[in-house]
Amino acid sequence: MADTLSHKLIRDHLVGGEIVPGREIALRMDQALLQDILGTLVMLELDAMGLARVHTSPSVQYIDHTLIQQDNINADSHLFLKSACERLGVWYSGPGNGISHPVHMERFGVPGQSLVGCDSHTTAAGALGMLAIGAGGIEVAMAMAGQPLYLPMPEIVGVRLEGKLPDWVSAKDVILELLRRHGVAGAKNCILEYHGPGLAALDAMDRHVLANMGTEMGATASVFPSDEVTRDFLRSRGREADWIPLAAEPGCRFDRTERLDLSRLEPLIALPSSPDRVVAVAEVAGQPLYQAYIGSSGNPGYRDIAVVAEIVKGKNVAGNVSLDVNPSTRRILAALIDEGHLGALVAAGARLHQPGCNGCIGMGQAPAAGRNSLRTVPRNFPGRSGTREDSVFLCSPETAAASALRGVITDPRTLDMPCPRPREPADMALDDAWFLPPLPAEQARGVDLLATDNTPPLPLIAPLPATLEVPVLLAVGDNVSTDDIMPAGARVLPLWSNVHASAEHLFEALDPDYVSRAREQGDAGHAIVGGANYGQGSSRENAALVPRLLGLELVIAESIARIHWQNLPCFGVLPLTLADPADRARLTRGTQVRIEGWREQLAAGSAVTATLDDGSPLALVHELSPRQQAILAAGGVINYLSSPP
Amino acid sequence: MADTLSHKLIRDHLVGGEIVPGREIALRMDQALLQDILGTLVMLELDAMGLARVHTSPSVQYIDHTLIQQDNINADSHLFLKSACERLGVWYSGPGNGISHPVHMERFGVPGQSLVGCDSHTTAAGALGMLAIGAGGIEVAMAMAGQPLYLPMPEIVGVRLEGKLPDWVSAKDVILELLRRHGVAGAKNCILEYHGPGLAALDAMDRHVLANMGTEMGATASVFPSDEVTRDFLRSRGREADWIPLAAEPGCRFDRTERLDLSRLEPLIALPSSPDRVVAVAEVAGQPLYQAYIGSSGNPGYRDIAVVAEIVKGKNVAGNVSLDVNPSTRRILAALIDEGHLGALVAAGARLHQPGCNGCIGMGQAPAAGRNSLRTVPRNFPGRSGTREDSVFLCSPETAAASALRGVITDPRTLDMPCPRPREPADMALDDAWFLPPLPAEQARGVDLLATDNTPPLPLIAPLPATLEVPVLLAVGDNVSTDDIMPAGARVLPLWSNVHASAEHLFEALDPDYVSRAREQGDAGHAIVGGANYGQGSSRENAALVPRLLGLELVIAESIARIHWQNLPCFGVLPLTLADPADRARLTRGTQVRIEGWREQLAAGSAVTATLDDGSPLALVHELSPRQQAILAAGGVINYLSSPP
Repeated sequence: MADTLSHKLIRDHLVGGEIVPGREIALRMDQALLQDILGTLVMLELDAMGLARVHTSPSVQYIDHTLIQQDNINADSHLFLKSACERLGVWYSGPGNGISHPVHMERFGVPGQSLVGCDSHTTAAGALGMLAIGAGGIEVAMAMAGQPLYLPMPEIVGVRLEGKLPDWVSAKDVILELLRRHGVAGAKNCILEYHGPGLAALDAMDRHVLANMGTEMGATASVFPSDEVTRDFLRSRGREADWIPLAAEPGCRFDRTERLDLSRLEPLIALPSSPDRVVAVAEVAGQPLYQAYIGSSGNPGYRDIAVVAEIVKGKNVAGNVSLDVNPSTRRILAALIDEGHLGALVAAGARLHQPGCNGCIGMGQAPAAGRNSLRTVPRNFPGRSGTREDSVFLCSPETAAASALRGVITDPRTLDMPCPRPREPADMALDDAWFLPPLPAEQARGVDLLATDNTPPLPLIAPLPATLEVPVLLAVGDNVSTDDIMPAGARVLPLWSNVHASAEHLFEALDPDYVSRAREQGDAGHAIVGGANYGQGSSRENAALVPRLLGLELVIAESIARIHWQNLPCFGVLPLTLADPADRARLTRGTQVRIEGWREQLAAGSAVTATLDDGSPLALVHELSPRQQAILAAGGVINYLSSPP
Repeated sequence: MADTLSHKLIRDHLVGGEIVPGREIALRMDQALLQDILGTLVMLELDAMGLARVHTSPSVQYIDHTLIQQDNINADSHLFLKSACERLGVWYSGPGNGISHPVHMERFGVPGQSLVGCDSHTTAAGALGMLAIGAGGIEVAMAMAGQPLYLPMPEIVGVRLEGKLPDWVSAKDVILELLRRHGVAGAKNCILEYHGPGLAALDAMDRHVLANMGTEMGATASVFPSDEVTRDFLRSRGREADWIPLAAEPGCRFDRTERLDLSRLEPLIALPSSPDRVVAVAEVAGQPLYQAYIGSSGNPGYRDIAVVAEIVKGKNVAGNVSLDVNPSTRRILAALIDEGHLGALVAAGARLHQPGCNGCIGMGQAPAAGRNSLRTVPRNFPGRSGTREDSVFLCSPETAAASALRGVITDPRTLDMPCPRPREPADMALDDAWFLPPLPAEQARGVDLLATDNTPPLPLIAPLPATLEVPVLLAVGDNVSTDDIMPAGARVLPLWSNVHASAEHLFEALDPDYVSRAREQGDAGHAIVGGANYGQGSSRENAALVPRLLGLELVIAESIARIHWQNLPCFGVLPLTLADPADRARLTRGTQVRIEGWREQLAAGSAVTATLDDGSPLALVHELSPRQQAILAAGGVINYLSSPP
C-alpha cells in the first residue's frame, strides 16, 4: 500500500510496536529541543541518571522564556543551563537569539529527521518535513539518553489545501478555520498531514504557523512535504545541503481526510478565552482595543512582522493601543532592521521587545484588566497573558495591524490600501557565533554544573499502594489546560526549576485552596476529577510531577490530552477515563474513590472498576501500555530506570 | 556684581526669599516632569486638592519605569495616568517613547526655563541651560498647583572644563572623575555650573550625562550655558525657535571653584556598590564579566549607543557576556536603526530592549548573583539591579563595549582599532503623534479618573504630639539611600501607587523585621537613626510618606540628603541632625528619645535638645524654615494646604 508521508517518517524511525492507530509505538529520536523553563528539570533528570553525553544530535537548549530578569533567578538559571550544555554535549542558544521553534527551523531543522522537545509547540518543525513531537521533559530526557519515544500510533489526517489565499488572509486564518471546524480536541492522537496544490504558496514560516498550532487542536504532530518551498527556506539559511525531497506516495490512504479551499477564507479571530472560539473578524469589528501584539511562535515569520510594518508605515498607531512587536529570532530581527521594517514600526509608535516568548507566556506585555488584547500568539487560555481577568483574541498579523491603526477591532479588508506582500530577503544565513556548540567530550567531563538554591534535586516518588483509596480534592470542568494546573507568567516561571517553590501555585486561578487541602491530606493521597480534554495545551511535565509531590495519586477525567496523559504515569499518577461521561456528576469534591488491586485490573484489560463511598461501582477505562503500567508500578520513570523489571 | 548663570536663572524665577546660601528661597516653576512610579501619587494628590487644571506648562507624564507588564497592574496604572493627564491638562508620553529625561530634552526642554520633576535625575535638563530640579512628588504637585518650589539657596560651584577628551574617554569619565574627587555628598546643596573652553566639544547629550549624575554627588542642580551646541541640538529636534543664548556674566564669582583638564582623563570605573568608588579601568582590567549594559539616562545619547555599535560591528560579543542594549528614546532608537547601528549590535549578539529605564531601576536585566555587571547607568547602590548580591560597576559605553568583546573588564584604549566618533544625524525631529497633548479645558472636565484597587486614596496623617517620646526602631549606617528605604525593582515598583501594599517592603534588605516592629509599635510612634548622607539618591517621596504611615515620627542622622530631608516634613516627620557626630554611638535600637516642646524648640533657633532614656541630653540641630515648621505642625503638606495658618 502507498505510504502517507507520516507513515514513511514513522517507519523510518520505528524501533518497536506496530503501525496500527492506538497501539503504542517506539520511535528513535534524532534531535532534541529544550527550552529554559522545562530544560532545567530535564538537565537535573539527566544528571540524576548519571549520563555522560547525550545521544540525540543535535540537542539544543534554548533560552527564550526566562528573558525578564527581575532578580538573579533567571540569570542564574541561564548559567546553570549553559554549564549543563557544556557538560552533556548540548548546543546552547542564549537569551536574545529568539524562540526555540523558529530558531530550530532556521539553524537545525532537517527534513526527514525526528525531533522531540519539552515544549508542546515543538511540532512546528513539521513545517520542514520533520517528524516533530512535543513531550514531557522526562520523555525528552529519556530520548536524550538514547531511549525511544513511546506514543500511541496516531491516526493520519490528510488535510488537502486547495486554491490560493485572498488578499488580507494569511496562514493564521487557515489554522483558525481548522480550529473553528474541529475544536481544541479535534486532532487528538492524530497527525495532520498537509498536502495539495494550495501548499505551494505557503512559505516555510507560514507552514510553521499551521504546524505550531496543530498543537491547539491536540495533534501529536503536523507534517508537511519537503518541497521546493522547503529547499528555498534552507537555501536562504545557508543550508541547502540539508534538503531532501519528501512527499506522500501517490495514491496513499489517510485515516481521515479534510479539505480546505484557501480562496474561500476570510479574516478570522478566536474570541476569549479558547483558540477554537473562532468567528469572522467582521462579526466583532468595532469593539475597542487595548493592545495589538505581533510575533511569537504562532506567527514567527519575517513576513508576519513585515506585513504589519507595511500597513502602519508612515501612519500612527491609535492613541489607545499598545502595539507590541515581538520579533521571533535574531536573524529575522536583523533582516527587519536591514529592510527598514523595524524603523517603520518604531516611527509609527510601536513598542519593541527582544526576540523571545515574552507575553505569549505571560512574561511581560500583560494587558490591562478586562481590556481587549489582539494577539498573533497560539493560545488565549484564561490568564495566560499574566492578567487574571484578561480578554485575549487570536488573529493574523494583518488583523492586529489594522486594529492597531483604527483603535478598534478591524477587518483588514476594510483598510483603504493595497494588500502588502513583503518578501523575505534571499540571504538569511545565521552566524554560528550566536550559538555555543557542544564541547569536545574530554573538555566536557571537566565542567561542573552551576546548581543554585533554585535548582534543588528532585525528591523521590513512592510507588502507589496496592489499593487506592483517596478522596476527590478537586473537580474541574472541560478543557482545563496545563496552564490552569501549573501556571506560567513572570511570577511563577522562574520557580519551575524548583518543585517545592512552584507547588504553591498549583491550580491557583481555579481553586486557590487546593494546595492547602492537598498538604493537609498529605501522604494519604488524593484524586482530581477532570472533564473533557483535561490537561490540554503546554507539555509541561511539572503539571504532573508537582501535584504528585503534593499527594496526587489518581486522575479521572472524561478524556485526557495526550502529552499530559503520558506525563502522569511517568511521575507515578494513575490516569483513567470515565466509561460513561454521565458519571462525572457522581464525582464531586469529597467523594471517596477506591480502586482495589489496580495493577491487576490494568493488566487484565482496558476496564477498571472503582467503588465510591456509597458503595456504588464506577466504570473506568485505561489505555496504558504494559510499559507504562510497569513505570507506574515502579512509581514513575526515574525509579523505573533505576531498577528495571 | 556679575551674575553666574545659576544666579541669573534663580533671579529670573525668584518669588520669595533671599539669594544667600542656606536661606530658603521660593522659585516659580515653569515646567513639570512626572514619571510613572511616582506620578501616580502626584496625580492622587492633585485630585485630593481638587485641582481643575495644572499651572505649569508643559507638564508631562512619562511612562518609562513600569514597562514590564507581568500582570495588569502596570497596564492599569498607565490607563489611570492617561486619564489623569486628560483631566488635568498634562501631556502624556506613553510606554515605548523612552526615558523622561532625554525625551524631555528632545521635545520640551527650553533654555532659561525652570523645571521641577518627581525624579532625582530631573537635573539632566540643566544640560540645555534650564534650572532643573528633582523634588519629592508632593512638592511637584504643589508646583503644578501654582505654588513655588522652596529650597535652601544652594552654593554655586563653578566647574571649569579645559582641554579636550582623549580618544576612548567620554562624558561618563568626566562625571566619574568628579565623583572620585568629591564623593556622593560632595555637591550637597550646591549647583554645579559648568563653563570653560572644554565645553564646546561636549554635545547636548554629553552634557546630559554630567547634569544627570550631578545628582549622584548630591547636587541640587547642574547648569550649562545655552550656546551653539545647545542651538545645534534644538535645531536637530526641529525646535531652533526655542533657543536663546545664556551664559554666566564675565567676571562672575562662584562660591567654590573646580577645574578639570579633560585631556588628562583616562577611562574610569566605579566599583560596586557606590558611584564614588572610582578607579581607573586599567586597575581592574582582566576581571571576569557577566553583563555589559548600555543606555539609561546615565548615557542616553545617540552617540552612546552608536559608539558601542561601531566597536562591536562585524565581531561577536564574548560567549560569557550578556550585552544589553537600552535605547533611551524612540527618536534615538529610530535613528540607530536608520544608520545601521542597531543592526550591527544585533548581529554581534546584543540583546535589545525597549526604550525606558529598564534594568537601571531593577526592571529586568538583573545580573546573576555575585557576577560582575558593567553598566553605563548613573547608580550602583546595592541591590538596585534587582539582584540582592549584585556586583555592579559604572563606566562609559566605550569601556562596556570593549569589555563585552573581550569577556573581561577591558580598558578600551587597549582595543586594536581607531576610536570611533559616530555623529548624530542632522535631522532628529520628533513626531508629535507620539505624544497625547493636553485636552482642551471643556473636554477635560468630562474625563473621569480610571482609579483601580492599586491606586487607593492617601490616608490622613495625624500631626505629631507636642512632646515626642519614641524608641529608635532602626539604626543604620552611612549613605543609606532611598532605594534602601523604599525598594524599587520589578517586584515592588508596581505597588508604589498603593501605600498599603508598598509598606511591606520598607527597609527589607537592611532589616527585614523593621516593618513588623513598626506595626507592633503602631501609633505610639518611633524614630530611625541614620549616618551621613541619609536618604541619598532617588527623590521618591514614598520613602518619607510610607514610613510615616507605619508610625515614623523622627529621623536623626549625621546628615540628611536634600530631597529626602525636604520630603520628611512634607509628610509630617521631624528631620534632625546630630550636633556631634560622635553621638551616633549613643543611639542604638531600643534607645528612647524624648523631645519636649519640639515646636517651640524649632521656632527658637537651630538647636534642639532631646533627652535619652538614661536621662542624658542629646544636642541636635534643625534647618527647617518657618514654612516647613508650619507644615510639620500641621502634620504634612496636605493638611497644611487644607487649613493654611
